[in-house]
Amino acid sequence: MKITKDLYQGSLALLTDFYQLTMAYAYWKSGKAEQEAVFNLFFRKNPFQSGFTIAAGLEYVIDFCRNFNFNESDLAYLADMKNTDGTVVFESNFIEYLKEMRFTCDLEAVEEGTVIFPHTPIIKVKGPLIQCQLLETALLNIINFQTLIATKAARVVLAAKGDSVLEFGLRRAQGIDGALAASRASFIGGCSATSNVMAGKLFGIPVSGTHAHSWIMSFDSELEAFYAYADAFPEKCVFLVDTYDTVNGIKNAIEVGKALREKGKEMIGVRIDSGDLAYFSNVARQMLDEAGFPDAKVVASNDLDEHIITSLKSQEASIDVWGVGTKLVTAYDQPALGAVYKLAAIRDENGNWDPKVKVSQQSIKINIPGNHDIIRFLKNGKAVADMIYLKEDTSGKNIFTIIDPIDPTKRKKVNSDSMEQLNLLKPIFNKGKKIYDSPSIDLIKENTQKNLQYFDKTHKRLINPHIYPVGLEEKLYQLRTDLVFKMKNYEHE
Amino acid sequence: MKITKDLYQGSLALLTDFYQLTMAYAYWKSGKAEQEAVFNLFFRKNPFQSGFTIAAGLEYVIDFCRNFNFNESDLAYLADMKNTDGTVVFESNFIEYLKEMRFTCDLEAVEEGTVIFPHTPIIKVKGPLIQCQLLETALLNIINFQTLIATKAARVVLAAKGDSVLEFGLRRAQGIDGALAASRASFIGGCSATSNVMAGKLFGIPVSGTHAHSWIMSFDSELEAFYAYADAFPEKCVFLVDTYDTVNGIKNAIEVGKALREKGKEMIGVRIDSGDLAYFSNVARQMLDEAGFPDAKVVASNDLDEHIITSLKSQEASIDVWGVGTKLVTAYDQPALGAVYKLAAIRDENGNWDPKVKVSQQSIKINIPGNHDIIRFLKNGKAVADMIYLKEDTSGKNIFTIIDPIDPTKRKKVNSDSMEQLNLLKPIFNKGKKIYDSPSIDLIKENTQKNLQYFDKTHKRLINPHIYPVGLEEKLYQLRTDLVFKMKNYEHE
Repeated sequence: MKITKDLYQGSLALLTDFYQLTMAYAYWKSGKAEQEAVFNLFFRKNPFQSGFTIAAGLEYVIDFCRNFNFNESDLAYLADMKNTDGTVVFESNFIEYLKEMRFTCDLEAVEEGTVIFPHTPIIKVKGPLIQCQLLETALLNIINFQTLIATKAARVVLAAKGDSVLEFGLRRAQGIDGALAASRASFIGGCSATSNVMAGKLFGIPVSGTHAHSWIMSFDSELEAFYAYADAFPEKCVFLVDTYDTVNGIKNAIEVGKALREKGKEMIGVRIDSGDLAYFSNVARQMLDEAGFPDAKVVASNDLDEHIITSLKSQEASIDVWGVGTKLVTAYDQPALGAVYKLAAIRDENGNWDPKVKVSQQSIKINIPGNHDIIRFLKNGKAVADMIYLKEDTSGKNIFTIIDPIDPTKRKKVNSDSMEQLNLLKPIFNKGKKIYDSPSIDLIKENTQKNLQYFDKTHKRLINPHIYPVGLEEKLYQLRTDLVFKMKNYEHE
Repeated sequence: MKITKDLYQGSLALLTDFYQLTMAYAYWKSGKAEQEAVFNLFFRKNPFQSGFTIAAGLEYVIDFCRNFNFNESDLAYLADMKNTDGTVVFESNFIEYLKEMRFTCDLEAVEEGTVIFPHTPIIKVKGPLIQCQLLETALLNIINFQTLIATKAARVVLAAKGDSVLEFGLRRAQGIDGALAASRASFIGGCSATSNVMAGKLFGIPVSGTHAHSWIMSFDSELEAFYAYADAFPEKCVFLVDTYDTVNGIKNAIEVGKALREKGKEMIGVRIDSGDLAYFSNVARQMLDEAGFPDAKVVASNDLDEHIITSLKSQEASIDVWGVGTKLVTAYDQPALGAVYKLAAIRDENGNWDPKVKVSQQSIKINIPGNHDIIRFLKNGKAVADMIYLKEDTSGKNIFTIIDPIDPTKRKKVNSDSMEQLNLLKPIFNKGKKIYDSPSIDLIKENTQKNLQYFDKTHKRLINPHIYPVGLEEKLYQLRTDLVFKMKNYEHE
């Protein structure tokens, strides 16, 4: 898959905040450009008050990194930038330096479809400070959005309890790629198909759809429109019944369904896109059953999300297939995931990692320092806790104390002897060379479902979920605390 | 400007819902493909409980239409689609038909930067039914999002009351183009610059930015980091002061500012990105003033929107420049505009326009039928009302009754003799040929401000605005009512 090549011409290197370029220049000027650094991409809160998050976007990131370079027109644009006094912003030697730059970092990442939690790195980039910095914005843009939507989709699919969920958000999505990336992430999260034909073509996702109100309105009557549609698509008849009057629409659908049956074809069902879905779905079910169409499906749409689906299910609505659009592809109730990308360590002159923290008045904004990793402990196939740790602190140990990064009184002891251990971060690039075998989108989708199986249903509850334990291994917690104290004193004196 | 060519390779024809293609096929099969139709794109409610909306996205639409065609790989994808019984979904003659299809419609649109209101068409497409249908989804995707963001930006800029607003949302935007299109629309809405370098390059928008926390953290001390930045960018020093301790950060900024001054350079200011912005901005102002830097700016960021800016202003925060990201580019409090695209009329066998309505149980969902236009009446340079009307109903008249489409007891009488009249819909394409002279993005931005001047400040209030009158000319209102009654009876009997 070559997403950016398929979607975008040439270079995406300028898909970044301008301050990344001014910092890059200043690193280069001050001789720090090639100093080795580690940056982590992570978020601080599950979206939607969810008990979990689904990682997505890695394939876009891989593609972005592989094709990372400044092309001639990018360089000309930068070379032409002027200060207010008319001097150039970037020296020509720096432009030359950018021209030669290729992605040469190590990159580890959580695989797409993995269940993840706050504070743990989704992506870890290790390499020249200047490159780590220049990747920041694009990586955040990609991971923030696709992870958000995959999580939303997983919640909607959980609410649908085994029914098919179709994503049809293109018309309300945030831009062209806002739609394409959302279709991809929705499929990863568990949707069965998309309405977006370009997403179908680019990513190999099934597409679905039948007809709109305009089809009905372009004929003199609804019945005539249904007959004409059945002529064109005898195999694909889902009749939209609410253009004029829903009950009458269902009657018309049944009439055409009977005519189809005489030709040896079965209508698939009816779709209701407005009005009281609980009421009309039951009316439709009853009318279809009585007319001898017990297998005809009732498809419903109209501003659905996981909460409305749950409510309709609790009202015993007779809905078999859920069409979800706006609320899914824009993540309507929380349209951004606040993932950040923070410097965690920098290699000093002696080759040692110097761990770094950003101190903040808001405890939640203090990052986790050091070149750390994550392990997930499983017992009898169920996830028990995730631990963020430094390899050098833990070798040979089997009993760990895991400390919540915000509330240090929340602790969990784990004896690894009786447990399976998963390393969540997988090597993706080694010095810029891809060493990861990208799975198909179908496998990624399966990975989501497999991952969700690791977690107790209380963590997957849509409202007020049980909080899964994630924390810092004791020594890493101590390191972080010490560093915060040091930075506070250091800067005050 | 060639947005899609710059951004995307090849064809965007598949950027559509699958049902547009199944309908297209069924129109073609039933001999209706070339029947002339009129579709209108409009929304039903201003977003954000705003009193107005700013139109944006037309340049993308123009580019989409000009480049509309199915390329070989699109056609191969469609030709390869199979039904469950293994037969092809689309006959090969239809694939051939699509191959030859080019955009040949008439298209009228409200210019970008125009203040618009619910129910009035932003875009009117007249042409072969099949083409009108195939454009729907992409047009909605483009206009919905850019109009939403331009409106949000205009509100944020109104709240800032003349201060500069910088857009820096790329990292939290919904996908790559979710960011690019948002940067463009934010500039149209009134932002001064973007952090998104690619948007700067593609659209000719000013870019801005200095440095991040990681710059500070990569050095042994904040002071060292500020000095190094000042060495690289003596002209562009906005020091981010909250990495460790904001007050100490301001002290360090002042020290480096003084050193810069000795070299004949002036620092631009400081940026605060966390903590209590009202408190720290006043601390910063006082410290800067006392140190002899009364012209240094205080830049603030951290989840700002129009309401928080208003609150900070009412608290007399000393903020000169507002950096706005997530809440702007995702339109956080309402991340989708619900614009729709509805069949309004179809040409019958005798060449007459047959007006069309979709009846709904929800009154707000009943569209406005017929090949209608919009006029804005102005008196002494101020907008008085917008009227949706049919040309044939109004020629020679000068007194009009305008009726609210939802509440027919809300009416406004207008005597056009004493008024200026603006036709809001401008011709953009004539039979597929572009006849519109696209303005520069700077002119579009000016158009927004000029348009906002037409409206009383009560319509621009951020909360509980005064509702601007928009309605149907009496005869069009009657036509719509008659049609709804007719469709209801017609379908019931």
